[in-house]
Amino acid sequence: MTVITLLTDFGPTDAYVGAMKGVIAGIAPEARVVDLTHNVPAQDIYAGAFHLLTAHRYFPAGTIHVAVVDPGVGTQRAIVAVRAGEYVFVGPDNGVLRWAIDDAGGPVSAVRVEDRRYALPEVSATFHGRDVMAPAAAHLAVGVPLESLGPPTAQLSGERFPEPRDGRGVVVHVDHFGNCITNLPPDIAALEVLGRRLAVAPAYAAAPAGRAIAVAGSAGFLEIAVNGGSAAALLGIGRGTPVRRHSQ
Amino acid sequence: MTVITLLTDFGPTDAYVGAMKGVIAGIAPEARVVDLTHNVPAQDIYAGAFHLLTAHRYFPAGTIHVAVVDPGVGTQRAIVAVRAGEYVFVGPDNGVLRWAIDDAGGPVSAVRVEDRRYALPEVSATFHGRDVMAPAAAHLAVGVPLESLGPPTAQLSGERFPEPRDGRGVVVHVDHFGNCITNLPPDIAALEVLGRRLAVAPAYAAAPAGRAIAVAGSAGFLEIAVNGGSAAALLGIGRGTPVRRHSQ
Amino acid sequence: MTVITLLTDFGPTDAYVGAMKGVIAGIAPEARVVDLTHNVPAQDIYAGAFHLLTAHRYFPAGTIHVAVVDPGVGTQRAIVAVRAGEYVFVGPDNGVLRWAIDDAGGPVSAVRVEDRRYALPEVSATFHGRDVMAPAAAHLAVGVPLESLGPPTAQLSGERFPEPRDGRGVVVHVDHFGNCITNLPPDIAALEVLGRRLAVAPAYAAAPAGRAIAVAGSAGFLEIAVNGGSAAALLGIGRGTPVRRHSQ
Repeated sequence: MTVITLLTDFGPTDAYVGAMKGVIAGIAPEARVVDLTHNVPAQDIYAGAFHLLTAHRYFPAGTIHVAVVDPGVGTQRAIVAVRAGEYVFVGPDNGVLRWAIDDAGGPVSAVRVEDRRYALPEVSATFHGRDVMAPAAAHLAVGVPLESLGPPTAQLSGERFPEPRDGRGVVVHVDHFGNCITNLPPDIAALEVLGRRLAVAPAYAAAPAGRAIAVAGSAGFLEIAVNGGSAAALLGIGRGTPVRRHSQ
Repeated sequence: MTVITLLTDFGPTDAYVGAMKGVIAGIAPEARVVDLTHNVPAQDIYAGAFHLLTAHRYFPAGTIHVAVVDPGVGTQRAIVAVRAGEYVFVGPDNGVLRWAIDDAGGPVSAVRVEDRRYALPEVSATFHGRDVMAPAAAHLAVGVPLESLGPPTAQLSGERFPEPRDGRGVVVHVDHFGNCITNLPPDIAALEVLGRRLAVAPAYAAAPAGRAIAVAGSAGFLEIAVNGGSAAALLGIGRGTPVRRHSQ
Repeated sequence: MTVITLLTDFGPTDAYVGAMKGVIAGIAPEARVVDLTHNVPAQDIYAGAFHLLTAHRYFPAGTIHVAVVDPGVGTQRAIVAVRAGEYVFVGPDNGVLRWAIDDAGGPVSAVRVEDRRYALPEVSATFHGRDVMAPAAAHLAVGVPLESLGPPTAQLSGERFPEPRDGRGVVVHVDHFGNCITNLPPDIAALEVLGRRLAVAPAYAAAPAGRAIAVAGSAGFLEIAVNGGSAAALLGIGRGTPVRRHSQ
């Protein structure tokens, strides 16, 4: 039984994700579909890339990860299927897959998904998640070899994950709780944001309520948090805010 | 393995949908449950009908589609189970099922779901999705014949899908991205909305950012879109806005 | 095939729930995962407790209910696994499980989930839902005995469900529709809220549109509703608003 994960920016109000699951159920009835999130901000490729980076590795070997944040749908941008580590990734070649693929060890093989035998009979101009990516993933789940989906592709598009330099980094994601996840590693004693020093605490609740702290977050990065509140709201910070290892 | 889809207006905050899935898991443990959407605006029958119309056909033959937008729960309105095309539809007889049933070729057989053997032992006055519709769908999934659920019913209630007349139509849905889906067919060269002519483009990204266009949408209708933005917000249009085939 | 339900306050925007499902799929590929809700207000233990109370009993015997509303993550608070009635409940010992466990007949056996053999190899300081609770539930689903997860614990923490006294109760939950669910039993003729008498009606739609009524709700309690509208908004009431059996 193969797991197929879905990550999109389709939001909660439409039946677009449901239609993708219908397509998968028709081709690969035994596959198990798991939602990562469908609330990526519209067309925000690197928000999608962040979620895929942090969640993909918790799935069993053989999982097929599908990510549809696809502002270029209907244009000449490629759809790719990429084997990396124990996973296969399927999505537009615009960077949404990139951080996870690199984290999984880089591409072992990659193809452009172009063979129409593995797409729906009619491919719309606006919904390749349903018409191309879902059927490609489902065909992979029932044993179609990656190489059958289309011609090999040498290089993937999109930016790499922003690594910190000389102890300087940025907030890369603000989560539902207002925790601000940085790209700094968790093995430092304190970070600095907006001129404030935040000591690294062992748990959210280790600080008094309302006090900003840094903690080693669940994604493997330092995050800025406020016990019982939103660090983003209370400190006025967000994605892109510079942070640095505190020199002390 | 039968697929059961669920569409409701229950929203994301309560455990109502979860309870329906518990009921189904108890009766039909092998059935696969797929969410279409649960964010239909409260009691908005035709928003639900639109999602079911556009998504139902992507599911495998034998799928049971359950739609619970049910402002009349607890009154004398009927709950129906309807075979149409390759599917069975279950829901209140108020129009929420109608557009999809017609799209699937019209009802082949239809019954009022009244046999208490296929409902929960206690039927509440306020939640027939859990107490009547989910168990009816689950019993169908394990092989109970449609005709066993209750007496046949000759006619279904609710409005038909609004077909365009003489090239004049309306916006029937605004999606998560602000794309405005009309009831006009996709095979025309341009449409007119609020006195503006919009040429039909091959893809969202075929227009400059911020420019309104028409595209052949994934539901089989023309839609009004803005590359990188919300057509609804930028043009000030929404459900019910008149559109027409441009005469040029 | 075992059902595992998930209830969290993780919200819809992140991939945290997805990661939990990945962990479960790796350990218990045959388990069926059902979402109760992930939109419990952040750290609102008793909102989570209410949803678990009302939904848990609709699941088949053997279901494992996991609830992660966990402001104390990373501190000394216990994670417990509790057998009660036909179910097992897994979550932090802070009250989020309590109302459902009591409703299921009280704890038959309870352990602190401490054996690291049933957790992920690395346990973060901030996400025990993924690192401890999901793997514990998955191991239970594949047959690990409850008693293997850790040492027995005699007593559970958290408040009991607030029972009404002398016909006086409170609103315990406001649902997506604005219906205000009280803790009063449904077998009374009228209730009083803010000095107004509301007769108990047989259905939402039994009252004229816009009229406030009481109905026997689907959770087994009286609820205050407005036909076609939000009782919470129209009456200006919410969680904690006092209500009473009307003396007439």
